[in-house]
Amino acid sequence: MSPLPKVSQEYKEKRRQEILDTARKVFIQKGFDQTTMTDIVEASGLSRGGVYQYFSSTDEMFRQITDRNDEGFENWIKKIIGESKTAWAAIENYLAEVEAGLLEPGVGFGIVQFEYFVFSTRKEERSSYLLKRGETAIRNFSLLIENGMKTGEFKPIQPTEAIVMFIININDGLLLQSLTLNKYEHDRVYVKEQIQGLKMYLKQVLQVE
Amino acid sequence: MSPLPKVSQEYKEKRRQEILDTARKVFIQKGFDQTTMTDIVEASGLSRGGVYQYFSSTDEMFRQITDRNDEGFENWIKKIIGESKTAWAAIENYLAEVEAGLLEPGVGFGIVQFEYFVFSTRKEERSSYLLKRGETAIRNFSLLIENGMKTGEFKPIQPTEAIVMFIININDGLLLQSLTLNKYEHDRVYVKEQIQGLKMYLKQVLQVE
Repeated sequence: MSPLPKVSQEYKEKRRQEILDTARKVFIQKGFDQTTMTDIVEASGLSRGGVYQYFSSTDEMFRQITDRNDEGFENWIKKIIGESKTAWAAIENYLAEVEAGLLEPGVGFGIVQFEYFVFSTRKEERSSYLLKRGETAIRNFSLLIENGMKTGEFKPIQPTEAIVMFIININDGLLLQSLTLNKYEHDRVYVKEQIQGLKMYLKQVLQVE
Repeated sequence: MSPLPKVSQEYKEKRRQEILDTARKVFIQKGFDQTTMTDIVEASGLSRGGVYQYFSSTDEMFRQITDRNDEGFENWIKKIIGESKTAWAAIENYLAEVEAGLLEPGVGFGIVQFEYFVFSTRKEERSSYLLKRGETAIRNFSLLIENGMKTGEFKPIQPTEAIVMFIININDGLLLQSLTLNKYEHDRVYVKEQIQGLKMYLKQVLQVE
């Protein structure tokens, strides 16, 4: 008797990512709290055991999707910094891409994250994850500011974290406003002007010449 | 036989407001989508008929609470404008009160409105209310800016609505960040600095001397 063929690590990872992609789509369509494991099993076309082998809950899937996004975000920020001539240009390039993304139609994973985090205020078991994720977001955004502090281009008059929180507020607010208002009227939200407004604040708070 | 005593209009209005106060508390405690009419009947201490005489759904109650808040907000803004020496002072006084409110502990009705609006992206029947409510918020915030345009103090370089959307983003973002992060650490959110940042933007966009 020959042994059963070994399922390669690579195959397993590919399958895991495919299940996450499916879960992501179902979460976007139904909302996180409304999605059950059964929904994802059905959408995946796999057996129940085939999914549970990789994930035991929707919460686990949500967190891995978010972690994957955060990692992608970090690499994206680093890439922009690497490709920009100055630290201020990196911020402008970053904001230009945010602006382009916001004007694209369709609901993305952002709304799912909103739901999860808004509801987390009532669900204690999500607290430590929420905090960890907050730290990650702050650290990633901080890269843009620290970059300019290193080169001497930025001389912030507020703590880096305060500036990052402000950027996150405008970012998240634009996302939420776009999702709720722009489906009725094109750019009811004034994406361009708000990004411009964020730059007015940043130039002043970072003391960019 | 004497006729049944007439329930006065005043009594009815008082009872209606009491039921709304109860509903507000239950929504804050359980979240809007998790609250049933039965929950509110039980919390009110009234009979089922006693509540249904005034309201037929939690949605109706939510909307009346929000409308009542919006009316209160409009009067509050007008009072601040009336009591402030200049249009810029009115904005500063408004923001000082926002700041004080954000540093108060406890979850308010804000989080319930967040839940309702975030979820509205999936619930078509909420769309027209969402839009109407958005218009009201924009109109009320606009009062602060138009006030300074009338006196010649403000010469905005962006459309009033774009400026209002930016203010709303920082306002809502501060509320959400405070609700999710400040319960772990006092002012992790940098409320003071963010309000200061909003002023940096406003001074520039309104061309305040």
